[in-house]
Amino acid sequence: MQTESLKELMLRQQGQVDAALDVLTPTEESSPATIHKAMRYSLFAGGKRIRPILCLQAALAVSGRAVSGRGEEQPGGLPVPPAMVAACSLEMIHTYSLIHDDLPALDNDDYRRGKLTSHKVFGEAMAILAGDALFTRAIQILTTIQGLDAAGKLQLVEELAFASGTSDGMIGGQVIDIESERKTPTPELLHQIHSAKTGALLRASVRMGAICGGATQEQLDQMSRYGDHVGMAFQIVDDILDVEESSEALGKTAGKDEAQGKITFPAVYGLERSRAMAADQCRMAHEALGIFGGSAQRLHEIADLIVYRKS
Amino acid sequence: MQTESLKELMLRQQGQVDAALDVLTPTEESSPATIHKAMRYSLFAGGKRIRPILCLQAALAVSGRAVSGRGEEQPGGLPVPPAMVAACSLEMIHTYSLIHDDLPALDNDDYRRGKLTSHKVFGEAMAILAGDALFTRAIQILTTIQGLDAAGKLQLVEELAFASGTSDGMIGGQVIDIESERKTPTPELLHQIHSAKTGALLRASVRMGAICGGATQEQLDQMSRYGDHVGMAFQIVDDILDVEESSEALGKTAGKDEAQGKITFPAVYGLERSRAMAADQCRMAHEALGIFGGSAQRLHEIADLIVYRKS
Repeated sequence: MQTESLKELMLRQQGQVDAALDVLTPTEESSPATIHKAMRYSLFAGGKRIRPILCLQAALAVSGRAVSGRGEEQPGGLPVPPAMVAACSLEMIHTYSLIHDDLPALDNDDYRRGKLTSHKVFGEAMAILAGDALFTRAIQILTTIQGLDAAGKLQLVEELAFASGTSDGMIGGQVIDIESERKTPTPELLHQIHSAKTGALLRASVRMGAICGGATQEQLDQMSRYGDHVGMAFQIVDDILDVEESSEALGKTAGKDEAQGKITFPAVYGLERSRAMAADQCRMAHEALGIFGGSAQRLHEIADLIVYRKS
Repeated sequence: MQTESLKELMLRQQGQVDAALDVLTPTEESSPATIHKAMRYSLFAGGKRIRPILCLQAALAVSGRAVSGRGEEQPGGLPVPPAMVAACSLEMIHTYSLIHDDLPALDNDDYRRGKLTSHKVFGEAMAILAGDALFTRAIQILTTIQGLDAAGKLQLVEELAFASGTSDGMIGGQVIDIESERKTPTPELLHQIHSAKTGALLRASVRMGAICGGATQEQLDQMSRYGDHVGMAFQIVDDILDVEESSEALGKTAGKDEAQGKITFPAVYGLERSRAMAADQCRMAHEALGIFGGSAQRLHEIADLIVYRKS
């Protein structure tokens, strides 16, 4: 049946996400231009669009229908379908978190994905505000979705805000991560950091897609489980890659986790056991998808891709 | 009829807002503690709660009913009434903007209201994240309001996000303000900055209160007009006070606007004409309240207070 490889599908959906992000972000010409340029610089800095694609695929798994690009079925190509707006809001939140994480006061990274970070290009003030602005924009676009009722839109806002917050959310994970540097690495601390820091937004990605697809509570629960396992696998592999890869291949300063004394899976469990754990998380992710049958095929493939990726 | 002076009313409502903020913000004990401490430090740093009180009074003007404190009518004192949640979300956004504005990369202020700023107490990383977290929390609490339907809650989220954004919103105003330093001060630029930087959130304050009070479109329009004029008056007076007051009385470094080359009303129009403009904005604010009759009495008094305040 499927003639399109996962790689081809992802490239196609990256293009659709990019096109939708372009529609949903103020143009570089609109005032004030600088902040819109800064927002776009980081939004279009070569992200792999993992979260948006997870969101789109979760919507498909639940509804059985693929989410179209920027409303190709509509005259004028608009509006953007609900799951695509949700996908873009996730990428905006992810990008905002990267901009703030890279700041001198936080991780102090000059490069990300081989490109200069926001504050190196636009200065610290504008980078802080660009992060703030992407967060704001992410919420705004959810409130203006067409083709979803107010309750559905509100649920999306709630999911995104929860995943971004301090209690088991992204900011909370970042705080625990910062405070854990130079602390004794324990398994509990490690899981707590990653469940919040990267896990919450990946979980929200599939949950928001599922909501747009009209999920039942059971489907939403299973999708959360999938998101949790994929998120944990993603982070374990990220830590492994940081140890293994050279600076060049990653496009960021590798081995930096260790240099900063960050708690990582290889540091706590060793490389071999970390690899086994990633595979284990991957298996559980597959299991969680059982109820969706064949429409979750791509989510299965994405779980494998995350665990067996090389960068 | 009224035995309570405006000053007494404001003190009482400040207390109610403080109590509601306490309920709606994670405790200092909840993990991760540091970020919750930082959020609370700035939230409870002596703000005058102008935006929350405007919100509560706008709800009263529209509905004819006063908003109670933290749900005194309910057993257990909960839930917090919709307009009070909206009021708290506005204060959280305002506080987040102050924390980020005070950062070394932006205004580089060590003190605000006579207290050390967030980054001086918690460090820059935590201050950036505390701002982010207050923004997130402001959105979260709106989504969980009890006693308002999904469409109403969504409308509040939309108002708050719009007022915070880059296009005619708070962040946009901040960007234009930063970029205007050392530029030729023109009336157009000045109005553009303040309409966005402080005006948008003040306008949202009365609009969100009005929405909670069940406003008609006409009532909402008039409330916006009131908010615009009060916001402009507020900023003109703020600029005048910066010139006039000593560092001690303001609790922040006075004359700083001039030192930083910021565009201000006195710089563009001179002190006397600025004072006349503030009075003019105040008069138009009063006019906008005409349709609300006696229930807008306190909004009238607040407009006067803003223009004739001494700090």
